[in-house]
Amino acid sequence: MINTYGMNGNHSKPLIDVCFTPALFHLYDPKDSIVVVIDVLRATSSICIAFHHGVNSIIPVSEVEEAYEYKQKGYLVAVERQGSKVEGFDFGNSPYDFMNPQLKGKDVVLTTTNGTHAIQTAKNSFKVVIGSFLNLDMLCRWLSLQNRNVIALCAGWKNSFNLEDTLLAGALVFRLREHFAFSYGRDTCIAAEYLYLLARKDMYQFLKESSHRMRLEKLGIEKDIEFCLIPDTAPVIPVLHGISLVNDVVGINALSTS
Amino acid sequence: MINTYGMNGNHSKPLIDVCFTPALFHLYDPKDSIVVVIDVLRATSSICIAFHHGVNSIIPVSEVEEAYEYKQKGYLVAVERQGSKVEGFDFGNSPYDFMNPQLKGKDVVLTTTNGTHAIQTAKNSFKVVIGSFLNLDMLCRWLSLQNRNVIALCAGWKNSFNLEDTLLAGALVFRLREHFAFSYGRDTCIAAEYLYLLARKDMYQFLKESSHRMRLEKLGIEKDIEFCLIPDTAPVIPVLHGISLVNDVVGINALSTS
Repeated sequence: MINTYGMNGNHSKPLIDVCFTPALFHLYDPKDSIVVVIDVLRATSSICIAFHHGVNSIIPVSEVEEAYEYKQKGYLVAVERQGSKVEGFDFGNSPYDFMNPQLKGKDVVLTTTNGTHAIQTAKNSFKVVIGSFLNLDMLCRWLSLQNRNVIALCAGWKNSFNLEDTLLAGALVFRLREHFAFSYGRDTCIAAEYLYLLARKDMYQFLKESSHRMRLEKLGIEKDIEFCLIPDTAPVIPVLHGISLVNDVVGINALSTS
Repeated sequence: MINTYGMNGNHSKPLIDVCFTPALFHLYDPKDSIVVVIDVLRATSSICIAFHHGVNSIIPVSEVEEAYEYKQKGYLVAVERQGSKVEGFDFGNSPYDFMNPQLKGKDVVLTTTNGTHAIQTAKNSFKVVIGSFLNLDMLCRWLSLQNRNVIALCAGWKNSFNLEDTLLAGALVFRLREHFAFSYGRDTCIAAEYLYLLARKDMYQFLKESSHRMRLEKLGIEKDIEFCLIPDTAPVIPVLHGISLVNDVVGINALSTS
C-alpha cells in the first residue's frame, strides 16, 4: 500500500497533478505549469519516435481541413482518424510511419483523433511537453530539473478516460514523487500511480481488455501497441514552441552534463 | 489480474458503465439507463441512513437559496457546504444527523457540495437511484433484476475525480459483472474495479491519503468516514420520483420474495 505521499507536505517542492481527459482540463490552472501531453496509443509515442529519427519539427493541428491546407503547401502530412490513416495524406499515426529516413530534417504536420486535440487544449500553459513510454526516463529527468509544477494531461479517447494514458501518468507520479508534492484535492495522482504499479510488470497483458487496445486490435496494429509500451527507446524532449513541436536539445544536453 | 470481462460479450446482457465525475456525464447516454448516484463521503450515505431510519422522502436541491425557501415553508432542511453544516439550517451532511427519530415519516430537504449536484445532473435519465456502501448488497440485487443499462455516476469533489466514489463504482462493477456486460469504449469500469479490489480489504486505510478524507479529517469527522465505509447497514433503495427521493419499498419486497 502506498503511504508516503508528499501531498500537502514540503511546500518548497513543485506540485504534480494528473488530468484524466481534456474535458476536465478546465478544472486545472496550467498558466504556471508544464503540461505533459500523453497519448500512448499512439500520437505521443509517434511524435517521440519521429524526433528520435531526426525530424526537424512537428506541427500539430486539430482539423483534417487544416492538415489539407499544409499538404497543398507541400508539407509532409500525417492524418489519423478513428485509428486509421486518412486517404490522400502521407502517413497515419503508427510509430513505424515515423521511422522513415525520408523524414530526417523535415517539418511534418500531424493531426490525430485525440493527441493533437490534447496538445491544443494545453497550449496556453507555461510549457507543453510530449510524454510517452518511449521517452519516460529522459522526460522524468528533464521535468525534475525544471522546478515547475507539472500536470500530466491524458488525451483519452474522445474526451473519455483511458487506461494506457493513465498508466503513463502513474509512471510519472511514481518516478517523480521524490521531487514533487501532490496537488491538494486531487485523487487522480493516487489512482494513476496505483494502476501503474499494478500494471507495470506486464502492461501489454494489463491492457488486454482496455477499450483502445481492442479498437486497435480490430485494425490489426498489435505491433504498434507492443512498440508503444517499450520504455526509453526514444530519449527526446518534444516541446511546443509557437505552433511547432521541436526537440529540446539544449535541455537534453544539460541533462547529460548534470 | 482481471481477465474475464464481458465487454463486447453477450449482447443480451445490459451494460454497466462508470462515469468518474458529473463533468463527464455529457459523454454518456442516460436516457435508457438507471443512473446510480454515488457520493460516499457523505451525501448518498446519509440519504441511505435517513431512509433506513424512516424518513418519508428527501428533496435534493442544488442551491442554498432554494433550501432556504423550503425552510421558510416549514420543511426540515439539511445544508452542507465545504464539508460543514451551514448556519441557520436543521442539519448538515453527517450520517449521524439522519439517525434522529424526529425524522421518521418526515420530508427532508437536502443540499450538499457534490451529491445533490450529481443527482440534478442525472435527473433526465431513465431512473436515478442512490448508491453507498451502506446499501451495496441491496442495490446490487435490485439492479440485477431491472434488466436495464446502469451508469454509476461518481459525484466527485467539485467535478474532480475522487477515490472513495470510484471504489464504490468498482464494487458495483465487481458485484454485477455476472449480470452485465461492459460498455465498449470505457476503461472506467476496469480502472474502478482494479482500485476496488486493491482497496477492499481495508478501505479506511486505502483512503488515508485521499483528498476528501483529508478534507473531512480537518473538520474532525473521522467517525463519519468510518461509518460510511461499513457495508450493508442500510438496506434501502432510494429512487428519484419527480423532485423527491423515496424508498422503493415495492422493489425491496420483490427482492425478498425473489
